[in-house]
Amino acid sequence: MATVDRWLLPDGIEEVLPPEAARIEAARRQVLDLFQRWGYEFVVTPHIEFIESLLTGAGQDLDLRTFKVTDPQSGRQMGFRADITPQVARMDAHSLRREGPVRLCYAGSVLQARPRALSTSRSPIQLGAELYGDASPASDVEVISLMLDMLELAAVPNVHMDLGHVGIYRGLAAAAGLTGEAEQRLFDALQRKAVDEIETLTADLPESLARMLRALAELCGGREVLDLAQACLVDAPDDVHAALDELVGIADLLEMRYPELPLYFDLGELRGYHYHTGVVFAAFVPGVGQSIAQGGRYDDIGAVFGRARPATGFSTDLKALIDLGTRESVAAPAGIWAPDSHDFYLWQAVQRLRKAGERVVQALPGQDLDAAVAAGCDRQLLIRDGQWQAVALNS
Amino acid sequence: MATVDRWLLPDGIEEVLPPEAARIEAARRQVLDLFQRWGYEFVVTPHIEFIESLLTGAGQDLDLRTFKVTDPQSGRQMGFRADITPQVARMDAHSLRREGPVRLCYAGSVLQARPRALSTSRSPIQLGAELYGDASPASDVEVISLMLDMLELAAVPNVHMDLGHVGIYRGLAAAAGLTGEAEQRLFDALQRKAVDEIETLTADLPESLARMLRALAELCGGREVLDLAQACLVDAPDDVHAALDELVGIADLLEMRYPELPLYFDLGELRGYHYHTGVVFAAFVPGVGQSIAQGGRYDDIGAVFGRARPATGFSTDLKALIDLGTRESVAAPAGIWAPDSHDFYLWQAVQRLRKAGERVVQALPGQDLDAAVAAGCDRQLLIRDGQWQAVALNS
Repeated sequence: MATVDRWLLPDGIEEVLPPEAARIEAARRQVLDLFQRWGYEFVVTPHIEFIESLLTGAGQDLDLRTFKVTDPQSGRQMGFRADITPQVARMDAHSLRREGPVRLCYAGSVLQARPRALSTSRSPIQLGAELYGDASPASDVEVISLMLDMLELAAVPNVHMDLGHVGIYRGLAAAAGLTGEAEQRLFDALQRKAVDEIETLTADLPESLARMLRALAELCGGREVLDLAQACLVDAPDDVHAALDELVGIADLLEMRYPELPLYFDLGELRGYHYHTGVVFAAFVPGVGQSIAQGGRYDDIGAVFGRARPATGFSTDLKALIDLGTRESVAAPAGIWAPDSHDFYLWQAVQRLRKAGERVVQALPGQDLDAAVAAGCDRQLLIRDGQWQAVALNS
Repeated sequence: MATVDRWLLPDGIEEVLPPEAARIEAARRQVLDLFQRWGYEFVVTPHIEFIESLLTGAGQDLDLRTFKVTDPQSGRQMGFRADITPQVARMDAHSLRREGPVRLCYAGSVLQARPRALSTSRSPIQLGAELYGDASPASDVEVISLMLDMLELAAVPNVHMDLGHVGIYRGLAAAAGLTGEAEQRLFDALQRKAVDEIETLTADLPESLARMLRALAELCGGREVLDLAQACLVDAPDDVHAALDELVGIADLLEMRYPELPLYFDLGELRGYHYHTGVVFAAFVPGVGQSIAQGGRYDDIGAVFGRARPATGFSTDLKALIDLGTRESVAAPAGIWAPDSHDFYLWQAVQRLRKAGERVVQALPGQDLDAAVAAGCDRQLLIRDGQWQAVALNS
């Protein structure tokens, strides 16, 4: 990133200079065009909303990461969006109100009062796609495939994918009667794979459930984990089996579509637990701690806006995507240099060329041909045979 | 605008649904591509900055319109950008530090704590172009011409243009020894064309200067105003004459380039006075009180960031531009409907079509061909001669 001047800018807040900014714009267009080719319709969500809309339900874990201000017009508290996904879910549930599946996509800056990790940006450009109205794994497979297509488009090398399913832990915790703080504490311990702590927190539970909950911390690795899980969780309630079967079905389809893609499974990893309800997934590249794109199923998010709809989707940070991608940046278009003259026929020639798609940069008083080269021009307008014509710069 | 749900959203804050959002995206690309054809390089400025950077110098009149928060990381006060122009000037002065003319353009949301006018958005999408490093009227004519090209691209009908020059009032006020509050009070009265008030405020000034300052309120109208001004201001100091000559020169060139464009002059209208220093201009359409695009020269803005550079440019609100424009919206691309099947050969056919630029929407469980029509598809994938092929939807 050509981001500079941190002395002037807050930590994690970037400005982007040329030519890097052009690269971001090009990538943004390419990804949005890809989403469109998959049938996803573009929406624009507000940068600021009343805090109740922004954080209710789905967004509670966003509270700490959200900048808040008081609206001088209404006196009510507002927040700057730190995540676009819940906003799009609100659009689907409340503003669009269509029947049947709806595919939406978006691109825009979000602001994080606190960064997700020490080194990460507080002003990512969030790009994502969401599929509403269908609860079947077909939707999960579609959004995961689209995410992989996006990573391929950006030429991100050596992608591997982590898959999990929130329903497995949820089902076991519910069967064990864990709620509220107790469920949250065990969840935290599982995330950290803190075996001793998990041991303690499950000590008073029925033996079979305790054993299964403890096993989750170790159910991570390649495809064999799914077979192992079938064995370990044989005594689990039906909804846990249904979740596991869903995960297996999704893994089968992904293996068929992307035979080269390394797939990892982690049944104790529950990123985004607060709003996810089913399969969760994240793409990683070696040597980068943070996922480069991630998502999952979040079926209940629209309920607070009047309509609980099945939902699945993913998002990425456009700046991170470009940083990790190896796609050649598009060469800046060449250009034609026009002399510093107010001649009306020159003006007409310049405008004709621009309308034909050419880039024409006009000299300002005192600029010579060095400036033409600096501006990336390879031709110049000169009078030849009584007419303004574009000729090679050094002719 | 397909903006809805004001009960959920703060006044003046909009969300944009399909298909309106696609129209905004298309217009954004068209305008940025136009800027690029004129040699303007794209930059991305931060949505949030320390208040000192955002409001120092150029931005003081933005203070009331800026949302402010405390940065939990640094404890310092930050603001959300309410105007992108001063940020771009900072980039030119401090981050880029190039010699000679620099052309930059940008597109992004800004947030207004208070709207500019009662009915206007508090979350416009600001699009603009700025030219740094050249103090000659050639630069002003270039940016005004680019602004007119942008309005033509958006097919905004019946555009007329207001032109003024801040240097005329500034020169007279300085000659009259008016500074600080006194200058501001007279400026306010001039803006309102409050003749009695202007009379009172200039009562103690030398007769010749008082007469010229009073005349400003009446120097508005067509081209004849410039001749009238030459006569009225004959006793004015040299810098006032220089300003007037500059305005005449710019008007001459615009009349040559755009003979059909109605030009109005207002020597007492000083919009954006706080950061403008030279020619100011605004495009209007009949029946709309607010200008649709506006700009001017603001030569001193970079000084607080270490380098005072000549600067001129303009901006518009993309949403207003689309509202007032009559450009036909691009027809949504047709599409191909794929059945709900996980057949591997279907997957391959779908991906091949997408890579060739086609829009392919796959059915989800339970969807029939009504959904294909609703998704805008005109073809469907069926097995013909043992292969998946796209055929007309009703075949």
